[in-house]
Amino acid sequence: MQSRIQRLYRYMEEQALDALFVTLPANIYYLTGFRSNPHERFLGLILVKGHEPFLLVPALDKEAAGTAAKGISRIYTHTDTDNPYEVLQKLLSAAVRRVGLEKTHLTVSRFEALAAAIGADAYFDLAAELQSMRMIKSAEEIAMMRKAVQVIEDVLHAGVAQVKPGVTELDLVAELEYRMKKLGADGPSFDTIVLAGEKSALPHGVPGNRSVREGELLLFDIGVYVDGYASDITRTFAVGDIAPKLQDIYETVLAANMRAIEAVAPGATFGSLDRTARAVIAGKGYGDYFMHRLGHGLGLDVHEYPSVHGDNEQQLAAGMAFTIEPGIYVPGLGGVRIEDDVVVTAHGVDVLTTFPKELTVIG
Amino acid sequence: MQSRIQRLYRYMEEQALDALFVTLPANIYYLTGFRSNPHERFLGLILVKGHEPFLLVPALDKEAAGTAAKGISRIYTHTDTDNPYEVLQKLLSAAVRRVGLEKTHLTVSRFEALAAAIGADAYFDLAAELQSMRMIKSAEEIAMMRKAVQVIEDVLHAGVAQVKPGVTELDLVAELEYRMKKLGADGPSFDTIVLAGEKSALPHGVPGNRSVREGELLLFDIGVYVDGYASDITRTFAVGDIAPKLQDIYETVLAANMRAIEAVAPGATFGSLDRTARAVIAGKGYGDYFMHRLGHGLGLDVHEYPSVHGDNEQQLAAGMAFTIEPGIYVPGLGGVRIEDDVVVTAHGVDVLTTFPKELTVIG
Repeated sequence: MQSRIQRLYRYMEEQALDALFVTLPANIYYLTGFRSNPHERFLGLILVKGHEPFLLVPALDKEAAGTAAKGISRIYTHTDTDNPYEVLQKLLSAAVRRVGLEKTHLTVSRFEALAAAIGADAYFDLAAELQSMRMIKSAEEIAMMRKAVQVIEDVLHAGVAQVKPGVTELDLVAELEYRMKKLGADGPSFDTIVLAGEKSALPHGVPGNRSVREGELLLFDIGVYVDGYASDITRTFAVGDIAPKLQDIYETVLAANMRAIEAVAPGATFGSLDRTARAVIAGKGYGDYFMHRLGHGLGLDVHEYPSVHGDNEQQLAAGMAFTIEPGIYVPGLGGVRIEDDVVVTAHGVDVLTTFPKELTVIG
Repeated sequence: MQSRIQRLYRYMEEQALDALFVTLPANIYYLTGFRSNPHERFLGLILVKGHEPFLLVPALDKEAAGTAAKGISRIYTHTDTDNPYEVLQKLLSAAVRRVGLEKTHLTVSRFEALAAAIGADAYFDLAAELQSMRMIKSAEEIAMMRKAVQVIEDVLHAGVAQVKPGVTELDLVAELEYRMKKLGADGPSFDTIVLAGEKSALPHGVPGNRSVREGELLLFDIGVYVDGYASDITRTFAVGDIAPKLQDIYETVLAANMRAIEAVAPGATFGSLDRTARAVIAGKGYGDYFMHRLGHGLGLDVHEYPSVHGDNEQQLAAGMAFTIEPGIYVPGLGGVRIEDDVVVTAHGVDVLTTFPKELTVIG
């Protein structure tokens, strides 16, 4: 984490900034190891050119910050009756003229209050720099993501064991979320999705009282945060025997998933991954039924950079983590999506998800 | 909802504004009946002086908005490749000079993109006006809140039935959240809290693997959203027989809760409610152990206006909804909090929560 902070000091130098104010809790966790949800209160990591970084935290977080924050020796507090921006202004050793802050996170109200207290000449967006730092995962981060994957795969095994004709989508959602908590997840990393039969053809479907029935598909798209890091997996199952057409769709999606994963290596582009999967699906005549991007970055947020879509000609680099999740959705009939979490390595790919992918009959 | 929109047109007139841009999803739901989570996409309800209001929604929300939005006949869409702020600018029939928007919700990035496209002279905060509108609940809203309370009370009954020595806080959290889903809640309205023994003395405690033990207190603080409206209830129980000191604490908190509820009526101040409860607790010598405000507003958000604290000399008015939740927290020993949801009526109070409050031995 010290090296992350050092990189921000270099960024400050390069951009000719006097100070950086980091206020997004996930970024503060990334830079210091201190994880907190300050709700409406101000929480900030402040870097001023030529000075040691410091944290300004709500009074009730002081002890937790002191224990968790690595390499930050200065921790200041504010109380609920303080104006935290005025407290911050007094802590600055000199006037700051050019300030970097997270414009994609700060609200206009907070920005106006901060600007009134600080009185800098200009404010620049710091969010993109932090996004690009977070895009390359360290070995420790990958280990944490692997833990989040292991938890969600245990959850999925437990959920699948509860499937039988008559059980509803919501019954299964409840079972899955129960298991997440029991296994120590912070919580779901997004709304838990279980879709049965023709509902599996809705990429944005919402679980309801639809029952699982024999001869149909059943799609699970689930994830958890564990110690702040996200996992995200989709598997689609056959409940009893399914029609040959659904089997064909399944095998096509599986082939697209595997071909795209095989193509992951430093130097390939995200666009090429998307096109690889799309070509497999189009080659079987299902091209019109795969209407979303191939995947998304994964880490401290369940959706972060990079975006794995056809127009992204950025090159893959070692340490990038993202999902590969092709799908085919035939309205009224059913849909299949198979999603894995992968990390780019020096020479290829490390697939974090290990849950079997061959077509499996359950229930 | 038409009258809510009319009130905003009057506000626009009074403040000499040319247009209002409402982008907070809860406010759009409040004003139109259309409920959506647009994630990163733009969603806006636009009111321009002298023109009918219109919605600008992501393309995939068009049908849902058309079905749900009451009294909004103009619904426009943007796609993922559009700049939504430029689409918005083209939809404005004339230049707008003075614009109201929700500064406590809009991020600086979004505001800058919007301002670049719209080019108004000045932007004013609209959030406070919407907060004050939302503070007075209609009969329909109170009925919805009552439904959210009924669900959480059913959840609490089910959770209490699972209590026995040896079960952990996290086991109970999982059981409660399972019941929320099964009973049709949108989800918890905040992180579900179950705290056993000395942990009940932590107002911000986090459930863990601590087991429930005989002779201790067990505190539940739980809530759900149902159709967008929040409930929030706290009950504290005795697991088996508890020491006379804990019984005394319980009876003191219960008296404070009941005295504060009796004081609810139009014209009283929020400060006086807080002081009423605090006097009961201080009178028994526990004044130093009640270190948070008496309550908070409740509605489309689980924490909204008004704030029920000692310094708020605002008067209560019919239709205001909030919690009453005194507590006593003795470090190392245990804590008791008893929280009800109430609505101010023309002559007094309507207590939405009905779960019994006398000291109950469970497990």
